[in-house]
Amino acid sequence: MDTGFEIATEPRGEASASLPQAKDLSHHFNQTTKNREASTLKELYRYAGVPGMITMAGGIPHPEVFPFETLSATILAHDAFPLDPPRVPKKGKSLIEWLFSPTSLPTTSFTIPKWSPKPVDPKTIQLSTSLQYQAATGPPALPLFLREYVSKVYKPAYSDWDVLVNVGNTDGWSKIINLLAEKGDAILVEEWTYPSAVNSFLPYECKTVPIKMDKEGMLPEHLEKVLSEWNEEERGGKKRPHIMYTIPTGQNPTGATMEAERKKQLYKICSKYDVIICEDEPYYCLYTGEWTPKGSKSDKSILAQRRADAEKKEGSEGNQAFIKNLPPSYLHFDVDGRVIRMDTFSKTSAPGSRLGWITANPQFIERLTRISETSTQAPSGFATALTTVMLQKWGFEGYIRWLRGVKATYNMRKTWMCDAFEDVFHLEFDQNKSLFPDGSKTITCYSKTPKNKWDEKKGLHGPALVTFTPPTAGMFVFLGVHISEHPDYDKLTRKGEDATHVLVQKLWTELADNLVLFAPGWYFDGGGEHAIGGKGYGYFRLSFSIATYEETYKAIRTFSQVLEKFFKTK
Amino acid sequence: MDTGFEIATEPRGEASASLPQAKDLSHHFNQTTKNREASTLKELYRYAGVPGMITMAGGIPHPEVFPFETLSATILAHDAFPLDPPRVPKKGKSLIEWLFSPTSLPTTSFTIPKWSPKPVDPKTIQLSTSLQYQAATGPPALPLFLREYVSKVYKPAYSDWDVLVNVGNTDGWSKIINLLAEKGDAILVEEWTYPSAVNSFLPYECKTVPIKMDKEGMLPEHLEKVLSEWNEEERGGKKRPHIMYTIPTGQNPTGATMEAERKKQLYKICSKYDVIICEDEPYYCLYTGEWTPKGSKSDKSILAQRRADAEKKEGSEGNQAFIKNLPPSYLHFDVDGRVIRMDTFSKTSAPGSRLGWITANPQFIERLTRISETSTQAPSGFATALTTVMLQKWGFEGYIRWLRGVKATYNMRKTWMCDAFEDVFHLEFDQNKSLFPDGSKTITCYSKTPKNKWDEKKGLHGPALVTFTPPTAGMFVFLGVHISEHPDYDKLTRKGEDATHVLVQKLWTELADNLVLFAPGWYFDGGGEHAIGGKGYGYFRLSFSIATYEETYKAIRTFSQVLEKFFKTK
Repeated sequence: MDTGFEIATEPRGEASASLPQAKDLSHHFNQTTKNREASTLKELYRYAGVPGMITMAGGIPHPEVFPFETLSATILAHDAFPLDPPRVPKKGKSLIEWLFSPTSLPTTSFTIPKWSPKPVDPKTIQLSTSLQYQAATGPPALPLFLREYVSKVYKPAYSDWDVLVNVGNTDGWSKIINLLAEKGDAILVEEWTYPSAVNSFLPYECKTVPIKMDKEGMLPEHLEKVLSEWNEEERGGKKRPHIMYTIPTGQNPTGATMEAERKKQLYKICSKYDVIICEDEPYYCLYTGEWTPKGSKSDKSILAQRRADAEKKEGSEGNQAFIKNLPPSYLHFDVDGRVIRMDTFSKTSAPGSRLGWITANPQFIERLTRISETSTQAPSGFATALTTVMLQKWGFEGYIRWLRGVKATYNMRKTWMCDAFEDVFHLEFDQNKSLFPDGSKTITCYSKTPKNKWDEKKGLHGPALVTFTPPTAGMFVFLGVHISEHPDYDKLTRKGEDATHVLVQKLWTELADNLVLFAPGWYFDGGGEHAIGGKGYGYFRLSFSIATYEETYKAIRTFSQVLEKFFKTK
Repeated sequence: MDTGFEIATEPRGEASASLPQAKDLSHHFNQTTKNREASTLKELYRYAGVPGMITMAGGIPHPEVFPFETLSATILAHDAFPLDPPRVPKKGKSLIEWLFSPTSLPTTSFTIPKWSPKPVDPKTIQLSTSLQYQAATGPPALPLFLREYVSKVYKPAYSDWDVLVNVGNTDGWSKIINLLAEKGDAILVEEWTYPSAVNSFLPYECKTVPIKMDKEGMLPEHLEKVLSEWNEEERGGKKRPHIMYTIPTGQNPTGATMEAERKKQLYKICSKYDVIICEDEPYYCLYTGEWTPKGSKSDKSILAQRRADAEKKEGSEGNQAFIKNLPPSYLHFDVDGRVIRMDTFSKTSAPGSRLGWITANPQFIERLTRISETSTQAPSGFATALTTVMLQKWGFEGYIRWLRGVKATYNMRKTWMCDAFEDVFHLEFDQNKSLFPDGSKTITCYSKTPKNKWDEKKGLHGPALVTFTPPTAGMFVFLGVHISEHPDYDKLTRKGEDATHVLVQKLWTELADNLVLFAPGWYFDGGGEHAIGGKGYGYFRLSFSIATYEETYKAIRTFSQVLEKFFKTK
């Protein structure tokens, strides 16, 4: 079997030899983490690998009674998805067709036996091992692949980083909280953030400290201000935050994506105030790039165009261009070892795998391993075996090509949604009505129907309804409805009600009653004053990941009709 | 597909209708659990299932980019293992044979497609669903099966219990601690206990409160004494324990197994003092029964013999006999809803599945679901899909037959180990030198070599070396070495050293140097005074789960030789 990747005796790549080691950051551990002890059975482990040893020490079942003899999978070929799919699908597949026609995409298959003829090869996956108890670090073949991936794609700035598998980023983040957060800690988050991440620490009476954003995410000046002016007394006795939770790429819900310069600025501040940066990157490879309106020419620079063209090439050259065009990870600037990166197979393979990994300094990885030992242990051997053999089958280059295909698929879906807005509304690229503070590429959607005959004669369109910035990564369009234009807005405000919330809820319900379900923006509110948008906007998050082309158009058309009616309501 | 089990609209069986509902036990929740809030998006969920709805609310990947198109497995037939295997294996299979010959056992196979033609059937497993984000409760088909199993095998004494899947009992117990334990709590455990279970709560500064045992596990009189005489001041301010951790069947490490009467007594005490019973039952189905020495007649009563014979029958009658002969779960006496039972597929299918479940009252299940949502989420879809289809393929009766085969296999292995002791040592069934306080069926192993010529002429054997009680369930023989007979014992004691610990470590190392690895008993020490054994014994736990027949004999022979040498050392 050609696995496409080398067994690294120096797992972190050759380049790392000249890099510094991580600093000692163990003062960030909470008391529970300090209390954790390594197993008292080290002596036993030392003997366990001795050849000829009859081991009666462990309480492990015999693989002969594992019911699974072989496991086989048919998987899509690494290049199953085109890099440049057509803007309009030739023919949408109906649900019935999905159900009854086998996939027309190229596939490959593999079988995992219970007993491999090469049981000691570290790259071997066999069911008798995968379905047995395993170390919390999982089967060696998986971290072997992940270290190569981290080394080649993220290029960390220190030498002794390591990886630890987990059961997905929710688990990873929960374990990081378990590692670092003391009851009552204040945790830095984006002003709009992923509510499940917050729900993971709220029960421990930790509070969010929202940092204002623009289209690249957190604003360095606001972070600096919050940290430098931190006053424990004013903050109800809370210590200055030492944990930051951030989604740098395709941020959830805003779609904001942070480039290198911004990360450098933020890293410097975090280093100054000794903050651990926890970067949650489920959408990292869904870096879809700019949306260009139909019929318009790309306004890319020659350099940007050259980079985009390079990425459309098949083979290693295109793979390298893809990697180069990705925004660098915080790890790439991490000379201290203060970044904990969370990666998941949820968006690049399948969420149900419940498989992801953390990259961090070795002290953190050691404690996180202890935490895993008394909670999840290793991820399911079904998940690690099937995913590892899939990765081996594709190889590193093949996996990169797979990611490019997935990226192209989501870019296509994003284009459908933006195109639908273009077709349904009258768009204006309006710097003044910007959603994000920097205002670039912000689109305001107006009703195509003029207010009255008079306006129609003058060729005028209707009122501004919605403003958004087309995302460059992720799965979401985050949009602001001009809710303060609603005829009842002032009346409600005068009555002392939260007019925006009341009217957004009303609009959301009307949409749902018309069979279109958006996520309400308030659900993602990280608290504090908002830099994105402002008073008078009501927010929705629209996911373009799952709807068909036809559904996307239908939903946006319905949205437009409901909006028209909504703003006319007296 | 004949699944062999019914879709229960009343999931907990008909019999439950007449039973009481669980009491309100929410005062056991810790502060973190009380702080947990249900999702604020209930409204959204209400709409999500409406036919025709275009859902743009969730951040879920499209199944078209899940690389897995089909998943197939070859599994052993439900009756692959005989119910009454021969005492001595005909011919041990060598490792080489294991590696190169495919299994000779009967198998069956199945394939799980990405898209099933019956997507809405609750029993359907398809990859587009299994590999998608799922509710923390897992695919409906799995709890459907588990509720049937719990209802038919454990027969809980109240009506509104439910199940919740998890990633194995370590995860289950960790979540229970997260549910109930407040920092610094005192937790009731057996005097010898599973160290990983203790390691799960030690970092939270919880302490063990060991309860003395006999061969049925915890002693009611000691539990009553500990709880009734609890004095917070004497206990360093610790509140009276409200959590009990127990392994009733094939207890780890002692092999003790608790029958109905003892459970009733203990339940009554727990009810009186409002203690939550957490029963961890990985070995429940490995209830292997009594060991009968070779050549001796079974000393079973006629009734016991009739029950044993009934269990050897194939078909439903044998299955029913198997279920009837299992010690009842604490759930069967649980009129309050104060039992949290942990079950796992680790010993009945494979540990690497990382799949198990909790059975508890609905309040506890609701909070545990919240805990799962912010940590593991649902178990891996690979694990739930493959395990569920396997269970459906076998059906309920088939699964019970499978468990009987697994039980028979471990009984065979236990017999190998006990037989090896019989062949290698001179055994005496000695009520006076008992390891367990009640002394029944305790075996003391003497050296077959007499001390001197004089003893030899008199037909006397050598000194007593080891004492144990053959386990009736589980995977372990827990034995006491007569360490105080060692020539250095008194000298070491006079020097103020812990002679038992020093000498057990010495013996353990000598065994390991001779290629036999046992688990040292001190590792399982739950603290406090011991009722099992006593001063002068050194303990080892021997697992019979993994070694071949030949290895078992070799290990016990080596043990005997090392012991002889050890006790002669001056």
